[in-house]
Order: sequence, then C-alpha cells, then structure tokens
Amino acid sequence: MTTKIPRPVARRLAIYYRLLKEYKKKGEDTISSSSMGKYLDLKPSQIRKDLSYFGGFGKRGTGYKVLELMNTIGKILGIDQEWNVIVVGAGKIGRALLNYPGLREDGFKIKAIVDNHENKIGMKIDGYFPVEDVRRLDKIVYDQEIQMGVVAVPSNSAQDVTNKLVRAGIKGIINFAPVILDVPEDIMVEEVHISLSFKSLSFKLVNR
Amino acid sequence: MTTKIPRPVARRLAIYYRLLKEYKKKGEDTISSSSMGKYLDLKPSQIRKDLSYFGGFGKRGTGYKVLELMNTIGKILGIDQEWNVIVVGAGKIGRALLNYPGLREDGFKIKAIVDNHENKIGMKIDGYFPVEDVRRLDKIVYDQEIQMGVVAVPSNSAQDVTNKLVRAGIKGIINFAPVILDVPEDIMVEEVHISLSFKSLSFKLVNR
Repeated sequence: MTTKIPRPVARRLAIYYRLLKEYKKKGEDTISSSSMGKYLDLKPSQIRKDLSYFGGFGKRGTGYKVLELMNTIGKILGIDQEWNVIVVGAGKIGRALLNYPGLREDGFKIKAIVDNHENKIGMKIDGYFPVEDVRRLDKIVYDQEIQMGVVAVPSNSAQDVTNKLVRAGIKGIINFAPVILDVPEDIMVEEVHISLSFKSLSFKLVNR
Repeated sequence: MTTKIPRPVARRLAIYYRLLKEYKKKGEDTISSSSMGKYLDLKPSQIRKDLSYFGGFGKRGTGYKVLELMNTIGKILGIDQEWNVIVVGAGKIGRALLNYPGLREDGFKIKAIVDNHENKIGMKIDGYFPVEDVRRLDKIVYDQEIQMGVVAVPSNSAQDVTNKLVRAGIKGIINFAPVILDVPEDIMVEEVHISLSFKSLSFKLVNR
C-alpha cells in the first residue's frame, strides 16, 4: 500500500511526524486535522487526504490519536528502524551534522565522517569524533553496515564523492552541495539546498 | 500575474533556476523541457506547466533560451534584488552560513551574526566576521536595513529569537530549529529542516 504514496506526501508526513512529536511531548492524546492545519499552514482537507493514503484513523469530532498516528507515520517513513550514516566532508556543514538535534532520536546514526585533507584527517570533532581518511570509505561502509551517505563537500568534488559512495554500496544520499548529482536509478537522492530555501523565502516576500 | 503562482511551484522555480545557472556556466544557449526533466527527475509536462504560469517562452523544437528564462525566473523569485540577512546563533549552522556557496551570488548578503553567549560575542568567525551581542539586534536590523533573519539557535530559544526578529521589523525568517514557529500572518517563514530530509530519504529507501 505504501508504494502508492506520492513523494510530496512523504515530505508532509515528515512534517506531521514532527508536529505529533511536539504534541506527544506536551502530553496531548488526540489531535484534529484542523489544529494540525492551523499549526502547519495547511488545509485540514489536505491533511485528511494525506493521512487517508494509509487508511484514516481519525474519528469525526475527536480527531487522531497522537501516539498511534505517530507510530504509523514513523513506520511509513522508515524511521521505526535504524539507519547508519556516513558523512563525507568535515567542513562546517559536515561537522554541524554530527550533533544535529533530532537525527539520532529519529534513528539516524552518524557512524563516521571522512575527508581527504591531510590536516583534517585524524582531528577529533568536539573532542571525540575522529575524522577518517576518505580512502577508507569502502571499508567503513562495509564494516559499519552503512546505508546512507551525506555529501558535504564543495560542488566541484560532489560528483566524485557520490561515485565513491555508490561504488561503496550506499543506497541513499543526502546532498548538501548545490549541484545536481548523477546517480544510477536505484540510488535515492535527497537534496538539502539551503540556497533554495532563501530563494523560496524571497519569492514569498516579493509575492505576498 | 506572479501572485497566482502556487508555492510548491516557487520551490521548483528555484530548482530550475539552479539548473539554468549550471547550463549558463557550460555555455549552453537553449534548454528543452525534456532535458530539464531528465536532470531533475520531473516530467517535462510538469516543467512546461510550471513555466507557463508566467507565460511560456519555450519554442516547440528549440526549447527555452537559457539566459532569458533564468532572468525571468530570477525576477519572479525576487533575486533580481539584494536581500540583507542577519543570522541569530553563532553555532555550527550559523557559522556555516556565513560563506555558504551561492548565497551571496544570488543576492543574499549576510550582514551580521548575533549570539547571546558571552564567550561567543566578540569572536571573529573565519578571522574577520564579528559575532555581535543579540541585544543589539534591533539596532543592527534598523541600521543595516535587514529584511531576513535566520534562526540558528537551539529549539528551546527559537520562538524567543523569532519574537525578537519580528519586533525588530524582519519580514522573512529562515528557520533551522526543528520546531514550528508562531509568527504574525504577515511574516513569511521558510523551514530548513535537515532532519526532514533524512526522513524523506528513508521513506524513499523503504518504499522504492
């Protein structure tokens, strides 16, 4: 059933998941699509439609059960399991990811960070997380059973790093470099383009 | 005309803009919706539909003129003008933004970075960019004519920082904190939630 879920819905599911987590922290048991819509600036009908993709569990009048909905969405998003992650590039972005809030909580474990600069290899980030040599990438991916790779290198080496990750057996890539990566069809790529967010904001400001 | 463009289209426009920039760098004069679609993993019909929102300039057979399309999209995205930006939070993410590739090129000028930690205020990032006291926020925003604020602080202070930015007269916010911000209706917020990208990737891996 889940294979029929369109990808933009996946992104919204992740947003719903985060909101549900906040509700859970506050000790709320139920949530309505209208209060979710208010928080997220989405139409309640859109939310109900999204949630109906995997069978609605909302009850008219009482809404959704927070914990139940959170667990179901978590499963659909694949975060009911753990994902081992390698970060390539020990620059500011790469280093920032190591203790980025919520990643570990949601099952994403950064197992290693690698770089190709002599002066970075061997350094310990935050005093404990060692930067390893990118030439050890294959071995690290294999030994630590890593499924996801993060490309956090400058644009001009992003494709080369991507090729290395693919050869090492990585199945999914998070790309921070502002370039479009060329990958085999069975490799999934998710782009985090910070500059796109700035453009999206300027668009909103110009067109509001 | 631009006010009728739906917001998800804006995000795709930013993606088209980036691709066009790459084509321009390569010295290409024209681009077809099918080659754009191939690069971006989007249907050519979707691209043509998006571009038709502001009048199609594609010619059947020859495609779009790269420079013309890039300039038009740039204008719609509001990046034919300069935006002054303040970053709140001199942690790893905040510091990484200061020389994030492409921001300045697209007209986003980070004019200041502020923090509330005594040990950060006064430090010079990369040897030249001074961290200022968050208590000077109002004055900095006014003096430097800043329109955009970046929230790069821990979740528990994100709302407080947002309130400060709004009071200072900021009209748009880029939010890196994994919480949903409460803002007045006329303030635009764009969320950069790195953890959402990880969830979106795990979804793709589980459901491919």
